[in-house]
Amino acid sequence: MSVRLAQTARQRAMGLLRAVQSHPSACPCHVCTSGATSAGSLSTLFKAVDHTTNRHGGRAMSAARASDIPQKEYAFEMAASNIRYGPGVTQEIGMDFKNLGIDRVALFTDKNLLNLSPVRVAVEALESQGIKYDIYSDVIVEPKDYGVRDAIEWARRVQPKAYLAVGGGSVIDTAKIANLFQNYPEADLMDFVNAPLGKGRPVDKPLSPLIAVPTTAGTGSETTGTAIFDLVEKKSKTGIAHRALKPLLGIVDPLNTLSMPAQVKASSGLDVLCHSLESWTAIPYCERTPRPTNPILRPAYQGANPISDIFSLQALRMTATYLPRAYRDPEDYEAQENMLLAATLAGVGFGNAGVHLCHGLSYPISSQNKGHQHPGYESVGHPIIPHGVSVAVTSPAVFKFTGASNPERHLAAAQIFGADITNAKMESAGEILSDALKEFLYVKLGDQPRGISELGFGAGDIESLVDGAVPQRRVLNLAPDVHSYDDGRLRESLAGILEESLKF
Amino acid sequence: MSVRLAQTARQRAMGLLRAVQSHPSACPCHVCTSGATSAGSLSTLFKAVDHTTNRHGGRAMSAARASDIPQKEYAFEMAASNIRYGPGVTQEIGMDFKNLGIDRVALFTDKNLLNLSPVRVAVEALESQGIKYDIYSDVIVEPKDYGVRDAIEWARRVQPKAYLAVGGGSVIDTAKIANLFQNYPEADLMDFVNAPLGKGRPVDKPLSPLIAVPTTAGTGSETTGTAIFDLVEKKSKTGIAHRALKPLLGIVDPLNTLSMPAQVKASSGLDVLCHSLESWTAIPYCERTPRPTNPILRPAYQGANPISDIFSLQALRMTATYLPRAYRDPEDYEAQENMLLAATLAGVGFGNAGVHLCHGLSYPISSQNKGHQHPGYESVGHPIIPHGVSVAVTSPAVFKFTGASNPERHLAAAQIFGADITNAKMESAGEILSDALKEFLYVKLGDQPRGISELGFGAGDIESLVDGAVPQRRVLNLAPDVHSYDDGRLRESLAGILEESLKF
Repeated sequence: MSVRLAQTARQRAMGLLRAVQSHPSACPCHVCTSGATSAGSLSTLFKAVDHTTNRHGGRAMSAARASDIPQKEYAFEMAASNIRYGPGVTQEIGMDFKNLGIDRVALFTDKNLLNLSPVRVAVEALESQGIKYDIYSDVIVEPKDYGVRDAIEWARRVQPKAYLAVGGGSVIDTAKIANLFQNYPEADLMDFVNAPLGKGRPVDKPLSPLIAVPTTAGTGSETTGTAIFDLVEKKSKTGIAHRALKPLLGIVDPLNTLSMPAQVKASSGLDVLCHSLESWTAIPYCERTPRPTNPILRPAYQGANPISDIFSLQALRMTATYLPRAYRDPEDYEAQENMLLAATLAGVGFGNAGVHLCHGLSYPISSQNKGHQHPGYESVGHPIIPHGVSVAVTSPAVFKFTGASNPERHLAAAQIFGADITNAKMESAGEILSDALKEFLYVKLGDQPRGISELGFGAGDIESLVDGAVPQRRVLNLAPDVHSYDDGRLRESLAGILEESLKF
Repeated sequence: MSVRLAQTARQRAMGLLRAVQSHPSACPCHVCTSGATSAGSLSTLFKAVDHTTNRHGGRAMSAARASDIPQKEYAFEMAASNIRYGPGVTQEIGMDFKNLGIDRVALFTDKNLLNLSPVRVAVEALESQGIKYDIYSDVIVEPKDYGVRDAIEWARRVQPKAYLAVGGGSVIDTAKIANLFQNYPEADLMDFVNAPLGKGRPVDKPLSPLIAVPTTAGTGSETTGTAIFDLVEKKSKTGIAHRALKPLLGIVDPLNTLSMPAQVKASSGLDVLCHSLESWTAIPYCERTPRPTNPILRPAYQGANPISDIFSLQALRMTATYLPRAYRDPEDYEAQENMLLAATLAGVGFGNAGVHLCHGLSYPISSQNKGHQHPGYESVGHPIIPHGVSVAVTSPAVFKFTGASNPERHLAAAQIFGADITNAKMESAGEILSDALKEFLYVKLGDQPRGISELGFGAGDIESLVDGAVPQRRVLNLAPDVHSYDDGRLRESLAGILEESLKF
């Protein structure tokens, strides 16, 4: 069944949900036509080209190439780490390295985790198999450029044969970067950093094996080829994203998230929420330009696609259901297990589709922190706006802004949060999702900052926050329509979202 | 929300569907307790262990280990090839090999495909990048042991640096096997063949890169680590299954399936149907024994798990919707695109969960063919019962047999085929799904054999078919309960299913 253009907003949203459930928006055209019937671009391409040549991919493509400049993307690629899930699987990693014929690894973690059970179990697993290890525990939570440079230096000196990262996204991302630059001994950090900030050089050879063991239920970094850090002199976050960076294996062990403080559960869970919502509402892969001239240039963040949709929606449903439970009740193991799995599923979703405005705006919000010390993060030892908090804080304004680009998807998301969309109007889709998010953040979950003013920012900071967000163009462009904005309109739009986000 | 034990069968089945949709049976316990509340084994494990040691995975596991012998599995691993989807992506493979630094590949295909566009496009893609290639086109449809031995000999002689497989499952599977044995020059075919027929040796090193380009929408072999062939002297099919065999990249290009004859669409689509249904109804991963002593021994076919469930259900829904359309209307490109994607999704599902009785019984049905020449397969040049046909022909009897093991899942599947389960009784779940399958096979799709008698088998052949199925114990054991059967009860059960399958 195609997604039908039904009469009411509710029918259309339900149609979309059904379509994604009954086939993961399987017709590529579905994600390319905002809920229009599936008999869209791909079938049209088939029909457009006569069938003797049509059966000849090359010519069909060249035909398209001639007719359409700049060319839109016509394909998507799904890549994810192998995932092993189970309570206690951390104890298997020694055997995994031994099976790979590796007798010495670099163990990346942070000072807070050094004496906690996830690292203890990992070390026991290595020792039980006689695997030697060098520990790098200087990872900074929310890594900075000088921090990753230090890790790179360490890796180039120690020359590990493989990597084991035990920690949250900061630890796993730092290990990915160390692994990359150990394998490119001459490269400078900025060579691989995403353009326009860096040179965006593609990774053209396999890296050393990395096994990632998440200790938070948030980043999904164990499944992705993405690594994020602060570029201090630019007052902004940036990163390196290429599927060659993804871990060989993600060890998803519910025993490792038991020690998360409630506030860390909330913040990392909000990261999952935004990974799901941003990838679900991202520009469809086949609307993105340019079409890469070589598959190695096809970005990991390629827009919503029929497979990422499955993961993003599942993760969104799980987060809406389990995050409040996991946050409120430390004994609710079922909710914790489900949030850990949701984080991994969302990682596969956004890792292959991308995130957009919430993440693009979160980078300056975190890195321009004027002194906010988030409760539950005192042990970090410095003022911090946790990533998940900085991402979610603008979400009510962001999805109100993007609503018009794909009302069906925004209503479908609102319904997952329990909104009644029976008589919803298409033009209200953004507002409806925005209200559903406010109820989720401030009532169902609770204790969340009602705007960036509660994080210490005022109207006078907006221009500087916009300055920090504009370099995230690569990410911002994954929001529908934004890729067509000139700098003026982009700055204006971001400023508008931030103004609305001062106080909800 | 947990899966609730609701009052009526319908409510329970809907609850299960909602649970899988709202979270992919995310609590591992859900798939371990047949629809019971999620507060199952895993949470129990947490609670069972005091929290200081609980945070210590190793001890938690040892505790479990002492208390429970033989130990059930406690983990699952998801692995899938990278998937690239798009009309015309076949033209990119030359660049892919060049990006890998490979200048010469082995191109595996079969004689029928040699002059068709998928191979032409693939060859052009190689030549455009100056990649040299040696063609092996002696692949037999439904490969035999002597055929794969020939391919192994060829590969050991030619020593390709990488493999390109363009074809259906037979071609892709043969390439996987050639790649494996080229990399284990001393090994005998039976060393890696699944036990008990073979020695089931694990693959303990990476193989050469394989890019798989499916030309049918069926096997999903482009995503799996499975390779199947006939063991002629044993009158049965067997195979090699290890995630290390999976292709590096699956090229899912709708332009490559345009030339499928209607009967090939039907048969390969029926394979997708059974991959989905069998993996969805397979034993839950955490009910399977034994727990592997080393992760490398964890089989690819590990039982239903929260992630395979997502893929299997999506593929089932897509197949129920699109297969009849793709079969009846050669111009229905939307249906073809969706069936190709469904085949890939089902491949990820069964590739990590497994198949059971339909596939276990299909092997002797295909290999003991007494002369049936399936319409549309004349070009094969010998009598053939296509894999999909031999798999689906027993399905109405198989799912009637398995219904009692998990009524909710059988009713949920029946509802996907359009069955009204409003007043369904739990004890009728198998019958209801069986009837829904008959209506799908004989009415909605149509032209399918109504039992094995239409394939040339009589009551007198049942014992020999059972003889051929029993060695498939590894696969048969993935059917709930069957792992507990002794040989007598197993033979009796298989005979019963085959007798019922003589004529529907």
